[in-house]
Amino acid sequence: MTNWIDNQKNLMLFSGRAHPELAEQVAKELGVPLTPQTARDFANGETFVRFEESVRGSDAFVLQSHPFPLNQWVMEQLIMIDALKRGSAKRITAILPFYPYARQDKKHRGREPISARLIADLLKTAGADRIITVDLHTDQIQGFFDGPVDHMHAQGQLAEYIRGKYGVENIAVVSPDSGRVRVAEKWADTLGGAPLAFIHKTRDPLVPNQVKSNRVVGEVDGRTCILIDDMIDTGGTIAGAVKILKEAGAGDVIIAATHGVLSDPAAERLASCGAKEVIVTNTLPIPPEKQFDCLTVLSIAPLLAQTIREVFENGSVTSLFNGVA
Amino acid sequence: MTNWIDNQKNLMLFSGRAHPELAEQVAKELGVPLTPQTARDFANGETFVRFEESVRGSDAFVLQSHPFPLNQWVMEQLIMIDALKRGSAKRITAILPFYPYARQDKKHRGREPISARLIADLLKTAGADRIITVDLHTDQIQGFFDGPVDHMHAQGQLAEYIRGKYGVENIAVVSPDSGRVRVAEKWADTLGGAPLAFIHKTRDPLVPNQVKSNRVVGEVDGRTCILIDDMIDTGGTIAGAVKILKEAGAGDVIIAATHGVLSDPAAERLASCGAKEVIVTNTLPIPPEKQFDCLTVLSIAPLLAQTIREVFENGSVTSLFNGVA
Amino acid sequence: MTNWIDNQKNLMLFSGRAHPELAEQVAKELGVPLTPQTARDFANGETFVRFEESVRGSDAFVLQSHPFPLNQWVMEQLIMIDALKRGSAKRITAILPFYPYARQDKKHRGREPISARLIADLLKTAGADRIITVDLHTDQIQGFFDGPVDHMHAQGQLAEYIRGKYGVENIAVVSPDSGRVRVAEKWADTLGGAPLAFIHKTRDPLVPNQVKSNRVVGEVDGRTCILIDDMIDTGGTIAGAVKILKEAGAGDVIIAATHGVLSDPAAERLASCGAKEVIVTNTLPIPPEKQFDCLTVLSIAPLLAQTIREVFENGSVTSLFNGVA
Amino acid sequence: MTNWIDNQKNLMLFSGRAHPELAEQVAKELGVPLTPQTARDFANGETFVRFEESVRGSDAFVLQSHPFPLNQWVMEQLIMIDALKRGSAKRITAILPFYPYARQDKKHRGREPISARLIADLLKTAGADRIITVDLHTDQIQGFFDGPVDHMHAQGQLAEYIRGKYGVENIAVVSPDSGRVRVAEKWADTLGGAPLAFIHKTRDPLVPNQVKSNRVVGEVDGRTCILIDDMIDTGGTIAGAVKILKEAGAGDVIIAATHGVLSDPAAERLASCGAKEVIVTNTLPIPPEKQFDCLTVLSIAPLLAQTIREVFENGSVTSLFNGVA
Amino acid sequence: MTNWIDNQKNLMLFSGRAHPELAEQVAKELGVPLTPQTARDFANGETFVRFEESVRGSDAFVLQSHPFPLNQWVMEQLIMIDALKRGSAKRITAILPFYPYARQDKKHRGREPISARLIADLLKTAGADRIITVDLHTDQIQGFFDGPVDHMHAQGQLAEYIRGKYGVENIAVVSPDSGRVRVAEKWADTLGGAPLAFIHKTRDPLVPNQVKSNRVVGEVDGRTCILIDDMIDTGGTIAGAVKILKEAGAGDVIIAATHGVLSDPAAERLASCGAKEVIVTNTLPIPPEKQFDCLTVLSIAPLLAQTIREVFENGSVTSLFNGVA
Amino acid sequence: MTNWIDNQKNLMLFSGRAHPELAEQVAKELGVPLTPQTARDFANGETFVRFEESVRGSDAFVLQSHPFPLNQWVMEQLIMIDALKRGSAKRITAILPFYPYARQDKKHRGREPISARLIADLLKTAGADRIITVDLHTDQIQGFFDGPVDHMHAQGQLAEYIRGKYGVENIAVVSPDSGRVRVAEKWADTLGGAPLAFIHKTRDPLVPNQVKSNRVVGEVDGRTCILIDDMIDTGGTIAGAVKILKEAGAGDVIIAATHGVLSDPAAERLASCGAKEVIVTNTLPIPPEKQFDCLTVLSIAPLLAQTIREVFENGSVTSLFNGVA
Repeated sequence: MTNWIDNQKNLMLFSGRAHPELAEQVAKELGVPLTPQTARDFANGETFVRFEESVRGSDAFVLQSHPFPLNQWVMEQLIMIDALKRGSAKRITAILPFYPYARQDKKHRGREPISARLIADLLKTAGADRIITVDLHTDQIQGFFDGPVDHMHAQGQLAEYIRGKYGVENIAVVSPDSGRVRVAEKWADTLGGAPLAFIHKTRDPLVPNQVKSNRVVGEVDGRTCILIDDMIDTGGTIAGAVKILKEAGAGDVIIAATHGVLSDPAAERLASCGAKEVIVTNTLPIPPEKQFDCLTVLSIAPLLAQTIREVFENGSVTSLFNGVA
Repeated sequence: MTNWIDNQKNLMLFSGRAHPELAEQVAKELGVPLTPQTARDFANGETFVRFEESVRGSDAFVLQSHPFPLNQWVMEQLIMIDALKRGSAKRITAILPFYPYARQDKKHRGREPISARLIADLLKTAGADRIITVDLHTDQIQGFFDGPVDHMHAQGQLAEYIRGKYGVENIAVVSPDSGRVRVAEKWADTLGGAPLAFIHKTRDPLVPNQVKSNRVVGEVDGRTCILIDDMIDTGGTIAGAVKILKEAGAGDVIIAATHGVLSDPAAERLASCGAKEVIVTNTLPIPPEKQFDCLTVLSIAPLLAQTIREVFENGSVTSLFNGVA
Repeated sequence: MTNWIDNQKNLMLFSGRAHPELAEQVAKELGVPLTPQTARDFANGETFVRFEESVRGSDAFVLQSHPFPLNQWVMEQLIMIDALKRGSAKRITAILPFYPYARQDKKHRGREPISARLIADLLKTAGADRIITVDLHTDQIQGFFDGPVDHMHAQGQLAEYIRGKYGVENIAVVSPDSGRVRVAEKWADTLGGAPLAFIHKTRDPLVPNQVKSNRVVGEVDGRTCILIDDMIDTGGTIAGAVKILKEAGAGDVIIAATHGVLSDPAAERLASCGAKEVIVTNTLPIPPEKQFDCLTVLSIAPLLAQTIREVFENGSVTSLFNGVA
Repeated sequence: MTNWIDNQKNLMLFSGRAHPELAEQVAKELGVPLTPQTARDFANGETFVRFEESVRGSDAFVLQSHPFPLNQWVMEQLIMIDALKRGSAKRITAILPFYPYARQDKKHRGREPISARLIADLLKTAGADRIITVDLHTDQIQGFFDGPVDHMHAQGQLAEYIRGKYGVENIAVVSPDSGRVRVAEKWADTLGGAPLAFIHKTRDPLVPNQVKSNRVVGEVDGRTCILIDDMIDTGGTIAGAVKILKEAGAGDVIIAATHGVLSDPAAERLASCGAKEVIVTNTLPIPPEKQFDCLTVLSIAPLLAQTIREVFENGSVTSLFNGVA
Repeated sequence: MTNWIDNQKNLMLFSGRAHPELAEQVAKELGVPLTPQTARDFANGETFVRFEESVRGSDAFVLQSHPFPLNQWVMEQLIMIDALKRGSAKRITAILPFYPYARQDKKHRGREPISARLIADLLKTAGADRIITVDLHTDQIQGFFDGPVDHMHAQGQLAEYIRGKYGVENIAVVSPDSGRVRVAEKWADTLGGAPLAFIHKTRDPLVPNQVKSNRVVGEVDGRTCILIDDMIDTGGTIAGAVKILKEAGAGDVIIAATHGVLSDPAAERLASCGAKEVIVTNTLPIPPEKQFDCLTVLSIAPLLAQTIREVFENGSVTSLFNGVA
Repeated sequence: MTNWIDNQKNLMLFSGRAHPELAEQVAKELGVPLTPQTARDFANGETFVRFEESVRGSDAFVLQSHPFPLNQWVMEQLIMIDALKRGSAKRITAILPFYPYARQDKKHRGREPISARLIADLLKTAGADRIITVDLHTDQIQGFFDGPVDHMHAQGQLAEYIRGKYGVENIAVVSPDSGRVRVAEKWADTLGGAPLAFIHKTRDPLVPNQVKSNRVVGEVDGRTCILIDDMIDTGGTIAGAVKILKEAGAGDVIIAATHGVLSDPAAERLASCGAKEVIVTNTLPIPPEKQFDCLTVLSIAPLLAQTIREVFENGSVTSLFNGVA
């Protein structure tokens, strides 16, 4: 035996149980098999995972989606990472297409957690060296993780779809609230400098958290409105926004969001809210009972696969966005 | 304003939502109110917690039980601890009457996680300074946490109940498998030097994990058998042990365990297995549908309350066990 | 000698050299002296600090402002914290009225630092247990620090001043860009539900970072516009916004911001931009050469002193904002 | 000069001074030389180590055995690891054939250390990335180290030797106390489903730690007893067990243990206790004065060498045990 | 029960087994008893410690001296600290009158450890919050520990003894080598501005580490020479220095050092080297066989006791040295 | 796509803005380009850095010099390291030719920082894995960093220059104070066993820090004195030493130091102090206004380049010093 050997890197792809279809799509795009594993829950809810092949020295990518019941999938991913660490994987990259607890990224009032930071710390503690994620609720969450974060964007893919189908004439980009106007502005730039609007909620300062009224700020009259958001959860805000836009004289309303959380009663609300089309990606699984006629689901797998490949081969992820990442 | 003030300690008790009855019992024993809080789950399963009173400078005790769905309650406790850390609690003690993932305390085979260690690290990362727990699956789990662990035992309480009801004449202490004979030996000492037995499982080395036969090692003929374990999950092993003991000529069989996990079909199995009485504590909630005629549930609240008091007042927890902790 | 002593807390206040007036104001508000120290720079720029009194066991508050040359003051505060840690201070709270590098809170493009997170980690490494800061550029920066952050707001003080001087009739609240509309909305709520507007910058997607045009989105015609921001640096954006608002038919324009960075040529630009009044606080020193006729500077010292007192006495900081922090 | 080079791995083997014969055997098995070093103790007991060859970029394996005086060898291994870390070794694997302080793996009573965890943390602090060890006193010690642990077993080798010499007919496997019955059960499975027994110690609950009597639980009459343990220290327990077994009618007694600590007066006790053969491995050095007629020492070097090779080449260690590790 | 209690501090003093006399002296000076403990070594050298009283919430001071066999005492102190951490001591101060491995404070050549830093990290890992030590080999070792270090000096005590006995007329202060001239200069200042000299070793650059000749640099002719060092180990250098001084015409030679390591054959060498008196403190035990006629041992206990008291009461240690620490 | 790729190392060289000439020299020596970057300061002094090429998987070397304003350059290097860490560099080596704050390597009195340790910790926190530096003020600073430190020496280069120009006959090596006599001794050995002297400062113990008188200890009469130091800051001490040497009858005085800090009024002082030549390296930039007639500047770039190459290729840095590092 010689005491020198070539030190090659071995890409291994692992998937939690939350969204097997996405994992299979990514594996197919990459041309790499999903590593076989045993994963099951004990009767009291404890999760067990074991990999069926040696993971020593591997460049491990652990994909997990985070739909309901989200805490279950967080723990499963942490346990998978722990098993990889103890099994001597060389580098562990956690892939979270939808970053859990992204909305709890600050203390809104006193004595609250900052759960998005907690998630980053838990991943680090379990053994994750790097993170790949898509369209964080706020960009600052990148800074919650002490290590490299590849923050990918579905906007290009969504905008291309919209441009192809609806063109960029006579459109307006609309943010459903005051907090995402910056994002809407980026969309507006991408869609050829379209006008911008947002829904302004007026609150009564004497009654905490109660919205008095909503009004559209910006020009939407007669325009095809592209109503954008990072995620659609129960759909209340976004469906309400469609109604307000329609009342304000908007033309067709197209909803575009990266993450289709679609908690009940989102499907019902969106189907009946008057929007012409609702476009999301499959960062989260969308089971049949959540689907409805005007829903379009684009696959995020090509973007994830391309990112994994660049990370594995030490290429540039920035180039995937024309220098903007 | 002077720049010197007395530095008093303030005990505050917090409870997750997994087992409110136990928290109320502990609060009552301590004579300290549960700190009011808002806790809820968003539609996609994300957990939100906010405390309604200032927690600055407090000596915070965060009680959470861990029944099904266990991962949910783990995450809730972590989030509560994060909120306390960010809210400037002075010291944070996590109370886990049933330590989650205690059975995954080693790698049984390659490429497995050691989830019990992971849990300890997650608690530390979130901000826990100390842990209080009851009857760990193995004592070594104490060493998984980098800080003080008060490891309490329900055996005294359970043994006292048994001694009072059944006496110590003509009994035998039985371990349901070869791994808990040491614990059974401690029981035997406590119960006046009773004889000891265990169920020996014979495995076929050519067929992994398959048990060929079970036999009783030790004398049980005609004796009242105290069949002991740390927890009863689905009850398969323990109910099988009753059957084997009966076949081996045992008299009455009494089952005693600290943690009544009682996953389906435990209640059914235990009710019909032939045991005269099944005794557990309420480290885990036991809802009506899990209860059955011969089940006795002792409250662990006095032991937890006494431990909290000693920790808060810097007393000795060891003394609670006559010097054996 | 007895081996038990009362464990009192001793508040000690320390100040870097960046903004001595603010430190003296805070000390006076608290009724606590500034701890005497030797602080000087060696000829090559190395900073030296020594405290002239014992700091053992103290509850130390280290106030540093961060004007130009900012890196100098960051290092001085880190060195002061190191000296306190090695001098056995019991708890160290870093006070940063203006959080340095707050604008570098994410990677705008690939291969950039997240310097705001770096600052949080440097403070932690030096020995800071807690942070007090005012009006972070984004709320998420709270989550960059692994420990308690008391995030205070000057908005109440600024708004009260404006309300008292200009009333709330016929006003509009204007964000100078799309990224701070949410903050403007909070102002609008505080000022009685005023209308909202923002300046929309149109970029040419083919020419990175080049703004094609600016337009006002929202109603400002004839209204007194309260143009808000967290900080005014060189004043280019904000002075430009005044011009655009005037062109759009606005009445008087009042500029309000927490942090008066006022880098050259801000004073000149603001003095001549057409704004009726520019209101800032003294989180940063404003030397005579940066002052101009329509500039009003409110003192942040009462807010900082009140926060220190609450932290020291374990009171509630949240209460300083009517439950919203 | 080009700025790209192949990144090969270079296995380097280092040995502490506790057991040079084992290190030489491992080196020979691997076909890799021991790295030359200077190691000596100063007059006051301080240990000094320097490596005579560059260790930059190496995959370093640091073998140390832990006989008496154990603390000396622990410190030497820590110092070697520190020197490797500071000398830029790429990865450092600590090999501890006998894990020190393994018996102090929990608090038996209050205010005790958990020294086995402490050892794991000291190794990590010094710079160890991984651990290789053999037959831990309890499997849970794996979880004390925050990183990969390859836990090897000598049982296969020992059992093969016994099977070849004594066959599996009419044997019984005996645990010397109640705590290792589970391990004895594994032996029994390996030896064709042999019967199982253990020595039950009865303690007087009123007199702490005093054993009242010992009795055999299980069938040993007329059988060749394989008395197993993980280690033999002073030999008191195991020699006593032979006596009890003989009194209980056992046939020949064969003692098998991985670790031959053999502290005085173990050699004398074992030589005269009536056991037919005592079999250990050389995880610890067994100097001539500790040897006696019926002692057989098997070499652990082939197992260690095979493990090192698999780790270096990223192979599977699990396969060394037919899937059970 | 109320949930507020006074938070008093409780000083507890613990001692390793290396130097019980010193511990007793310190305890007597403080008027505080040594906490009773069980401490013993197992036959294979493993150390066991258990405290006989509750240590919860205590301000714990752990005194250990570090004579031969030094590694043994290092491990014992680490284990004691671990037991205190796990037993919930509030603050742990390690007292090391003689800091172990102080001479290995840098890499003299490549691939060496920096064991003095390793010791600091091991103490931190075990759980030490603070360090008290006396006359470090180099002051920089203070910076190896990440926390407060109280670095005490015996020079005042030694110099006072010398001044009282020998006066300051016609003396010279001599450093035994080129590395401690700075320390000798401090002594010279303390002794009224005495002249300074040192022994210059000439090395042959072609023969590593071989000293060609020694000569005195500075005036010593006819003077009473105070030959100073931080420690005397085997005494070779210092005894050689006496000889060289005598040859250079020196009068009486008095040797003064803080740490009397006195490894063989130091006693013999010093007794016969021609020095009039050798003065050390008892930071290390000096057993009868190491003592000789002209040896004077001063007790370091008052200085340690005073330091402990100041630390406990948050007083100033600096004041013990007239502002120079 | 295959899931195995060769894992080559890619050397990338980065430079802060403090000393571009040195970076260019090093790049040229290595034959490796400086990685293009954007680096600028915002008006308030915040530093911004972005690299223009992908740094993923690179072996990154970050060179920064630390002249006035030193804190500025410390922060810039930290920010560059943060950007590399977040950009997925594989290994990050910080090169600090002049280690900042090296003189604050201990507490001279109570309540001082140990800024040299702080710098090491800040570098680690930002993400540096390794350090390369030249002629530390004290060797112990190596131990402040928790990782490999390559500590290079310019002495060989300086001594060779002196030997070539002045020979080694009739010279003496002189330390400007008592603290660097050991270093002077090494020089003396290198220069053929030259005699040794130092300047002894007498202090009045009643007046802190005031020097009463200076005298030369050792023989310098008529000799060419090589006055050595690690750095020359304001030049006061060294120029004073020249004067004292001249008064003591020295011949020519040659000053040699690694680091030419040369803070005002060093150039003036050195030019007029009577030294024949002043020799430094360019670890720090020496702008035209600091240069003077008798100043010679040697380039440190070859030594740095050679070190980088050895580190990159896992060669031995020790060999650069004939086994003495």
